[in-house]
Amino acid sequence: MPNQITLLIKKYQDIINRGLEEIPIPGFPNSLYEPLVYSLHTQGKRIRPILTLMVGEGFGVPIEKLLPAALALETLHTYTLVHDDIMDNDDLRRGRPTVHKKWDVNTAILSGDAINTLAFRLLMDTDSPNLQRMGKLFTEGMLEICEGQALDMEFEHRIDVTVEEYMTMVTKKTAVLLALSCKIGGLIADCDENTLMALENFAIKTGQAFQIQDDLLEILSDEEAMGKSLGSDFAAGKKTYPMLLALSGMNKKEQKEFLTFLKNNSNIIKIRERFLKSGSIDKAGRTVNELITESKENLKGCPSQVRDSLLALLEFLQKRKS
Amino acid sequence: MPNQITLLIKKYQDIINRGLEEIPIPGFPNSLYEPLVYSLHTQGKRIRPILTLMVGEGFGVPIEKLLPAALALETLHTYTLVHDDIMDNDDLRRGRPTVHKKWDVNTAILSGDAINTLAFRLLMDTDSPNLQRMGKLFTEGMLEICEGQALDMEFEHRIDVTVEEYMTMVTKKTAVLLALSCKIGGLIADCDENTLMALENFAIKTGQAFQIQDDLLEILSDEEAMGKSLGSDFAAGKKTYPMLLALSGMNKKEQKEFLTFLKNNSNIIKIRERFLKSGSIDKAGRTVNELITESKENLKGCPSQVRDSLLALLEFLQKRKS
Repeated sequence: MPNQITLLIKKYQDIINRGLEEIPIPGFPNSLYEPLVYSLHTQGKRIRPILTLMVGEGFGVPIEKLLPAALALETLHTYTLVHDDIMDNDDLRRGRPTVHKKWDVNTAILSGDAINTLAFRLLMDTDSPNLQRMGKLFTEGMLEICEGQALDMEFEHRIDVTVEEYMTMVTKKTAVLLALSCKIGGLIADCDENTLMALENFAIKTGQAFQIQDDLLEILSDEEAMGKSLGSDFAAGKKTYPMLLALSGMNKKEQKEFLTFLKNNSNIIKIRERFLKSGSIDKAGRTVNELITESKENLKGCPSQVRDSLLALLEFLQKRKS
Repeated sequence: MPNQITLLIKKYQDIINRGLEEIPIPGFPNSLYEPLVYSLHTQGKRIRPILTLMVGEGFGVPIEKLLPAALALETLHTYTLVHDDIMDNDDLRRGRPTVHKKWDVNTAILSGDAINTLAFRLLMDTDSPNLQRMGKLFTEGMLEICEGQALDMEFEHRIDVTVEEYMTMVTKKTAVLLALSCKIGGLIADCDENTLMALENFAIKTGQAFQIQDDLLEILSDEEAMGKSLGSDFAAGKKTYPMLLALSGMNKKEQKEFLTFLKNNSNIIKIRERFLKSGSIDKAGRTVNELITESKENLKGCPSQVRDSLLALLEFLQKRKS
């Protein structure tokens, strides 16, 4: 039976999904807009726009005033997925073929560009005296996301990535967009600077925590729940938090042996055993808990309606299995 | 010896090139920002930002108030070139290797995304009560450019493209950005709706004229002046105005023979002869002149300073050989 948190999240998801469906999309040319609609009308968790709505609504702004910006954030996220999937050569996204697999690379580049443009267009539909600042923040966040993806690609070809470098990368690639989602909600609500800073810090720590949790799921979850094959990322040189943590506790010889093992094994059961033995799974789990505690700290000064809904979202995220 | 028009254009180009060099670019990560700088600091004609500056300055706005938006338009143009070059698999751009050739496709996708973001960022640096409207126009223009590129790619695989369809494509792919450049200048100057409309129509006709002139240069110019090899586009199925015009005057059998000829000949001298014989070169030249006349008509109601500089730019463009 669904509990209150699930119902709350579902309420927001329905609003966002309806909003996404109601965005006016020109039909012509079909080769541009069919993949755009395919990407936008999916079954995502909608975490980013939910953050915007929760923050804005918590500070008393009506949903309809927040919705265009909230949709802009989901749309921005969608565009990064379409382009990242090309760069990472991923075949599946949420259990369906990626755009460049279903169509081709050119179609994915161009429809990604159109989705990106649509994101900015939606943001510009927001009526707020803070629009210029929101526009600047939005683009600064977008640039950081590009930086994060660039670092992620660089790291694939390096074997000496540190845990700190990894945290910089995931902060840019994932956490910054959550922070942007919260701050845009806060700016529409005309929050003061201290509140905006607290919201940003909350979101950054949350993003870091859930990226590490994602990395853990890649090792501990089963393939069916994740909707994709596991293990192959390690062979491709993809860095994850537990992996870098394990490496950091080894000498050169052990590191070499561990990397060779990952390169030659795509069996997730064997990989899981090795990780558990290294102790990095436990340690990463503790880091997740610490980050979530820090994340919550930032909400102390927020009105209870904002705090309660953000904490509920945090709990929802902690329970997810994929 | 340079004449007055050349000096005027040079003045604006210098302002724009200096402006582009002074955009603060983060250095890290290098894999993202090196190709971004490579693409932005080139020797372009800077037609789009010149339009913004000419219009705005002509209506009495100081250059420094116009510059961020002008740079946004050049940056937007640059991003479309980086991504189009991937899609069209072009090796050279302004005599230098394209980003995806000098680096790789992933680098070109991602740095193109960052350049796109930078364009929005620069636009948001504009202080104007019309900023929201400018933001909406900007994104609407960008979407049309994507539509134009989608049509261009579709047309490569079709043999029944009409002259009208071709004009729709080039209007979206090229002319719309010129119109946007003029209108943004006009909006910063707080022009009335009639003036904005006149500027838009001027730019659309200009864009159409110069796209057809480009197509003619592809046939009539020499390879050195163009900085690229000619003739190969025809073999690849690329549609041009003179080509569609020639086809429209032929019966089915003649069309088939002509297309087979283009497919099997990449010798530009032979191609040129066939085009001259078909009469489509003369006819396309007449269309260019008609469009330029229509274009000029729209400037009648503009203040003389705006009209004079835009007419000078038009003359400059008409004289170009590449």
